[in-house]
Amino acid sequence: MITIVVGTNRENSKSRKVAEYYAKLLASHGATSQILDLRDLPVDFAFTALYANTGKHEVFNEFVKIVNQSEKFVFIVPEYNGSFPGVLKTFIDGLDFPSSFQNKKAALLGISSGVMGGALALSHLTDILNYLNMHVYGVKPRIQRMSANFVDGNITDKFISDLIDGQAKGFIEF
Amino acid sequence: MITIVVGTNRENSKSRKVAEYYAKLLASHGATSQILDLRDLPVDFAFTALYANTGKHEVFNEFVKIVNQSEKFVFIVPEYNGSFPGVLKTFIDGLDFPSSFQNKKAALLGISSGVMGGALALSHLTDILNYLNMHVYGVKPRIQRMSANFVDGNITDKFISDLIDGQAKGFIEF
Amino acid sequence: MITIVVGTNRENSKSRKVAEYYAKLLASHGATSQILDLRDLPVDFAFTALYANTGKHEVFNEFVKIVNQSEKFVFIVPEYNGSFPGVLKTFIDGLDFPSSFQNKKAALLGISSGVMGGALALSHLTDILNYLNMHVYGVKPRIQRMSANFVDGNITDKFISDLIDGQAKGFIEF
Amino acid sequence: MITIVVGTNRENSKSRKVAEYYAKLLASHGATSQILDLRDLPVDFAFTALYANTGKHEVFNEFVKIVNQSEKFVFIVPEYNGSFPGVLKTFIDGLDFPSSFQNKKAALLGISSGVMGGALALSHLTDILNYLNMHVYGVKPRIQRMSANFVDGNITDKFISDLIDGQAKGFIEF
Repeated sequence: MITIVVGTNRENSKSRKVAEYYAKLLASHGATSQILDLRDLPVDFAFTALYANTGKHEVFNEFVKIVNQSEKFVFIVPEYNGSFPGVLKTFIDGLDFPSSFQNKKAALLGISSGVMGGALALSHLTDILNYLNMHVYGVKPRIQRMSANFVDGNITDKFISDLIDGQAKGFIEF
Repeated sequence: MITIVVGTNRENSKSRKVAEYYAKLLASHGATSQILDLRDLPVDFAFTALYANTGKHEVFNEFVKIVNQSEKFVFIVPEYNGSFPGVLKTFIDGLDFPSSFQNKKAALLGISSGVMGGALALSHLTDILNYLNMHVYGVKPRIQRMSANFVDGNITDKFISDLIDGQAKGFIEF
Repeated sequence: MITIVVGTNRENSKSRKVAEYYAKLLASHGATSQILDLRDLPVDFAFTALYANTGKHEVFNEFVKIVNQSEKFVFIVPEYNGSFPGVLKTFIDGLDFPSSFQNKKAALLGISSGVMGGALALSHLTDILNYLNMHVYGVKPRIQRMSANFVDGNITDKFISDLIDGQAKGFIEF
Repeated sequence: MITIVVGTNRENSKSRKVAEYYAKLLASHGATSQILDLRDLPVDFAFTALYANTGKHEVFNEFVKIVNQSEKFVFIVPEYNGSFPGVLKTFIDGLDFPSSFQNKKAALLGISSGVMGGALALSHLTDILNYLNMHVYGVKPRIQRMSANFVDGNITDKFISDLIDGQAKGFIEF
């Protein structure tokens, strides 16, 4: 069971649609997955589930439990302000330390409206996951120019879709 | 008028105390400052002041106004999970783009309980501020091992306090 | 006098041609400049001018002197293997520490054949220059897809050339 | 067979001694290894084995062959100027692209005389290896303050030696 994290709390995000694409891709290679969408987080979790409140928020605890029971994660990472969304890091800041990601495995997929495709976003997130002793799959594809390259739930650029397919297959074995 | 940003929303944070130290330091060199503490943000701002809700949250708009009216910022940056707090990035994600920090100036001060002192935290934040076309002062001190080096509102390590004093003086002229 | 560093030792590099473009641009705004091309370094400097040999290589010492006498630098930074050329870092490793770049100023311009344009290259170099207490100008343009966007010594994409023109003007005042 | 890369070309480097320590450690866990020391590179390789000269330098070609025949690498990474040595990146710039590290595996160990321990050095190198589609082991220990923590070829700090022992064991299985 691979947990696919939608890396933003935006409503009806493109990241969510890419997560659904990735779930189908994993299924086509025989792997089951579940989607964890940050838009479902409690709206006040940054203030009610961290620091002195760690462990006290029932709804947030459900998210913590899902993370604790998962061994492999795919992060769908949109580019916000030259990095990944703050809410994704806040979510990580609320998880159990240091066990949440320790010795677990992650695959990262960047998406962006511009051409850069979130190279820095994936770099920053890799730093953090490595700090937490998580192994990050070395191939980290990016879907740049989302409006052109991701249409009706599918990737139109064959080079990119092949790259992601290779990542998905490789990550199942990783 | 320099705006000092307390880079976490934790209650009674050490970052807040360091911000107060920095305000006094700036005053001793003839510069006025104000403190913007992220713990004062609306608890649900990540869900009610971003994306489709941009500009619609009265309280958050006050924070936006303070940023828009400031030209120089000092960021007090604690290390959380190998980077800076997610709430600081979420705050930036809610600001006006691209004008908020464009062609403005920032000084960064890292703090940490461990020895690394947030080198990666300051690197990530610099990437983001540069992406937003903000100039970051080149000297970025770090107070490592806070419990030993920051006691009763003062820095006990002379090497570190001299470094920060130099940063403060230089940043006023920057 | 601004020193423009050609960030590679490749013969007849595109970086050199971009450096010449930048020199003209600076001249058009009334600033004088000189070009420091890494292809002119002694071929064995990595082994004969560093560590125990620091200061002993006459030719390399001339490069050191140019750096020591300059206050402002423009770095033309090609993307090699997802970062900047190793030879540029080796050059920096051979300079006087910590005075070479301390409290001096840098502007960075990234170039690449692909679309990413060296976002990570500029991030890594910024980390290093900041470590050396150098102030990096916040706007860091990139010329992606060089073969299309840089033809006959000129930038064909108006958005990019405006960005670089703004950087040059701003950096003169920085 | 694991290839341990001494990440500097300095004579009698501490990195070399740490590489020898790591080789013994791997042997104690039943893994064979060989040391590739950058001080053995041709002194002019940055000018005679790259770009137009790729593949033409007999001695450098031997290094290329060792890399091409290895599947797992341990990089011993000293901190130079806030990152890793330029010569290590120049070495990578001279390898076959994109096959050299593609889908291969790396473990990183940082060393430094100061307390930071090369956090940024390991981050930069991870970016580059990931760009080349190499998988980097998530636990990246650092030996800070080398003169105190590494004496007579052994690590005196038990916390650090346990961390490295765990990395070595985990990497053999990775």
